[in-house]
Amino acid sequence: MSNNLLKGKRGIIFGALNEQSIAWKVAEKAHEQGATFVLTNAPIAMRMGEINDLAEKTGSKVIPADATSVEDLETLISGAMEELGGPLDFILHSIGMSVNVRKGRHYTDENYDFTMKGLDVSALSFHKVMQTAMKLDAMNEWGSILALSYIAAQRVFPDYNDMADNKAYLESIARSFGYHYGEKKKVRVNTISQSPTMTTAGSGVKGFNEFISFSEKMSPLGNADGDACADYCVAMFSDLTKYVTMQNLYHDGGFSNTGVTQEVIEKFS
Amino acid sequence: MSNNLLKGKRGIIFGALNEQSIAWKVAEKAHEQGATFVLTNAPIAMRMGEINDLAEKTGSKVIPADATSVEDLETLISGAMEELGGPLDFILHSIGMSVNVRKGRHYTDENYDFTMKGLDVSALSFHKVMQTAMKLDAMNEWGSILALSYIAAQRVFPDYNDMADNKAYLESIARSFGYHYGEKKKVRVNTISQSPTMTTAGSGVKGFNEFISFSEKMSPLGNADGDACADYCVAMFSDLTKYVTMQNLYHDGGFSNTGVTQEVIEKFS
Amino acid sequence: MSNNLLKGKRGIIFGALNEQSIAWKVAEKAHEQGATFVLTNAPIAMRMGEINDLAEKTGSKVIPADATSVEDLETLISGAMEELGGPLDFILHSIGMSVNVRKGRHYTDENYDFTMKGLDVSALSFHKVMQTAMKLDAMNEWGSILALSYIAAQRVFPDYNDMADNKAYLESIARSFGYHYGEKKKVRVNTISQSPTMTTAGSGVKGFNEFISFSEKMSPLGNADGDACADYCVAMFSDLTKYVTMQNLYHDGGFSNTGVTQEVIEKFS
Amino acid sequence: MSNNLLKGKRGIIFGALNEQSIAWKVAEKAHEQGATFVLTNAPIAMRMGEINDLAEKTGSKVIPADATSVEDLETLISGAMEELGGPLDFILHSIGMSVNVRKGRHYTDENYDFTMKGLDVSALSFHKVMQTAMKLDAMNEWGSILALSYIAAQRVFPDYNDMADNKAYLESIARSFGYHYGEKKKVRVNTISQSPTMTTAGSGVKGFNEFISFSEKMSPLGNADGDACADYCVAMFSDLTKYVTMQNLYHDGGFSNTGVTQEVIEKFS
Repeated sequence: MSNNLLKGKRGIIFGALNEQSIAWKVAEKAHEQGATFVLTNAPIAMRMGEINDLAEKTGSKVIPADATSVEDLETLISGAMEELGGPLDFILHSIGMSVNVRKGRHYTDENYDFTMKGLDVSALSFHKVMQTAMKLDAMNEWGSILALSYIAAQRVFPDYNDMADNKAYLESIARSFGYHYGEKKKVRVNTISQSPTMTTAGSGVKGFNEFISFSEKMSPLGNADGDACADYCVAMFSDLTKYVTMQNLYHDGGFSNTGVTQEVIEKFS
Repeated sequence: MSNNLLKGKRGIIFGALNEQSIAWKVAEKAHEQGATFVLTNAPIAMRMGEINDLAEKTGSKVIPADATSVEDLETLISGAMEELGGPLDFILHSIGMSVNVRKGRHYTDENYDFTMKGLDVSALSFHKVMQTAMKLDAMNEWGSILALSYIAAQRVFPDYNDMADNKAYLESIARSFGYHYGEKKKVRVNTISQSPTMTTAGSGVKGFNEFISFSEKMSPLGNADGDACADYCVAMFSDLTKYVTMQNLYHDGGFSNTGVTQEVIEKFS
Repeated sequence: MSNNLLKGKRGIIFGALNEQSIAWKVAEKAHEQGATFVLTNAPIAMRMGEINDLAEKTGSKVIPADATSVEDLETLISGAMEELGGPLDFILHSIGMSVNVRKGRHYTDENYDFTMKGLDVSALSFHKVMQTAMKLDAMNEWGSILALSYIAAQRVFPDYNDMADNKAYLESIARSFGYHYGEKKKVRVNTISQSPTMTTAGSGVKGFNEFISFSEKMSPLGNADGDACADYCVAMFSDLTKYVTMQNLYHDGGFSNTGVTQEVIEKFS
Repeated sequence: MSNNLLKGKRGIIFGALNEQSIAWKVAEKAHEQGATFVLTNAPIAMRMGEINDLAEKTGSKVIPADATSVEDLETLISGAMEELGGPLDFILHSIGMSVNVRKGRHYTDENYDFTMKGLDVSALSFHKVMQTAMKLDAMNEWGSILALSYIAAQRVFPDYNDMADNKAYLESIARSFGYHYGEKKKVRVNTISQSPTMTTAGSGVKGFNEFISFSEKMSPLGNADGDACADYCVAMFSDLTKYVTMQNLYHDGGFSNTGVTQEVIEKFS
């Protein structure tokens, strides 16, 4: 259902790979709420994905970009402004990948080239997006920039490996850049710390099904799913949340502040 | 501008004293967004306030209640359901008062009867509201309950006195009751940690003007005002934020994660 | 083994009931490290306890005091200074009790007289101790005041009931009073957030054994026991930690920053 | 004064450049408390420093190592065990450097090669040290590993630049590796978040004097100096703190939990 919450707003959405992707759902909901936007993904990810269906469905152009390449980002952001007819109001960064995880390296046996590559893709790319946008003066005042994060930035989930450190770095960027973008242009920057979600990215993590189940039982409202996350992103892109900035926002059914639940404790009796 | 975000939702709003009150602005915006609600305040506060103007403007009934009295709360909540034609979808708790502050007692010279009275009004009342609502089964599934808080719950602002401890207790209630209300009825409970706001309540605090100014300069987006806070409350009452619960949400222009700003540091050179 | 870490230091230790008590162990270790101190407990608790054995063993005087009574606290603190021959260097507050828990009242069915009584005993008493000490100018510069807390102040453990809110209030007092005591007299104030410990107090909580077991498996180093906690208190009373103040210090084998462990996740496969 | 707190303990201390360095003071105090250790620094830093004086004074060997080189770290750690006659009980990581800061690049105009280099030196080196130590089984059970951090990991101090993100990554490593080292070998890993300190490293930051002054006035006990920090490190290396792990410990005179002080607010009247 549309409330025209994003009517007239322009944006860029990174990371829509397929229907499971949170970014995909955000695109659908943002479209429904009246936004126009450009979709983007890494060229290699696009070959695997069905992003063109989404583009068609939402009347969007796709501009491929490697989010670790400043040059690609310049092309993307300039292209988006041209395509959409003006500066942007929102950006969604939904990108993450650990080479150590993919290659099966334990956290205590990292390959540091892999570590650096994963950090660049998962976290530093967020800085690159914002630095490029700022240099191109691509954001309207009171614009809203979001990245998706996970509570592993605060607490250890052993299989999450070096993505935990990447998310900590990502959230720090949100604060640091949020300060400067706020001072300079009234742009707000936040991360959403989302429940574990059964996406293509998530499903690559070892023991993910057990983990989803644990998380479900540790959340008074249950795990938040991708649709609910997309709703929350819409709220954060809308004008209802203009003074929320530099925050990491838990969207997790209460997981983050639950120490234990009755259902979990019963497994220990 | 209405987006019909709260269309069909019913609620109770505590604490609208006059046009400066955040609760007043929430009432106006909730009405605009299609909600119906009952207004309430302590009988003594109502004599000072202009709540009837607000009631007329928003087509609402006023039911006076002392929020520290379980009996009054039962009457209020039952009356609200009857008046509105069914169970509730949202509650706003915007109540706070420190007798020690009013009587000019320093934090290191508390009168403990005053302390207990202030705690009862400012914090325990929130528990009483929810316990009463739960016993009356007065909330619909996925309802949203909010209380207004302040960052003094985390960090010391000396003139805030024992209200800091009250807010810490209030936020703990949000987590504790949020757990149980989530498990039982999918109701979410959160606090919004708002910028200092020039309301009747705020203006009673010693050195408040200087403090507002400090806070303004320490916030990359500036202090969030009451209107913006009301917008945020609307977002938190809407279906866009269904999986956010047991959280303390900073609505403060970035104050909470800013260590220092250029403007502030210059005062030290 | 003694390192004379507390040589020449004087203090008051609240809450030593029997050999299981953390306060009991702190008394033993503080004595070993060269401190002199007065022991105290509520008159009613003392009848049940074996505090006189501890007094004899550590060469300490016992001065009974109801920690909710400012009058009793004046007598205690004045008496301690007289007995020990000068102002104090440390205080341990290890007191907590929820009437709602004792009477079997669920968190959503609180008796608010019980709530207030539990808050007074478990949290407000900490303020009373410090306010009384400050008025009597009973602390030496760089003195150290500690209270024992639990992570339920941050996250929900449903059976912990209203003690969670009490601990949140207690920790807020540590910050608020720590500010003023630091400014005025260089006294530091902290709380230690301890692993669940099988004391007389702990054993009254429903499902405590299961909870201890869950906590053990969620802590990379295992639960911290009472002896280790006493060691930590000694460190916090010593001159090695003079600039740590207004903090809540987790002493929990890593529980607080562990999202899940391999052992726990296996219960969900 | 010695309390023999570290008697018989062996360690490695990174980062003693000159008498201002915190690592220098830790070496002095650890020596005084009965520890033996190896000193290390980057070859280039050693040319500028006076580390040999410290080595002589504390009876220590110096083994140069580039902390970003796993090969160098292997040589260092193996060499230290051989020199000291067995596995280690403690490690201090006191290393940090931002190329962007040195080159005068603003946070919104980062050179990403500089960013990566600074991250490697300031944060990833901590992982490399621990991964190497674990592979060589170089730590005794209940050993203690510390890195020095700063509150910019949580809040924005604009001139701190990308060191904020580095410190966030560093603290995440402490949690992540602390989990694994705890599970495997009962080794604890923590960071100390220290007041700004007038060291050679600190003095390179723009506006540092003003910042020291602001921080002093925002800390109820004043800024913690390097000597006090060294005392705290001794406490954290001792057996008094065996169950503290995966924590970021504020050693800052109360700065972290102070929202404002009377002295600061007066600048805004």
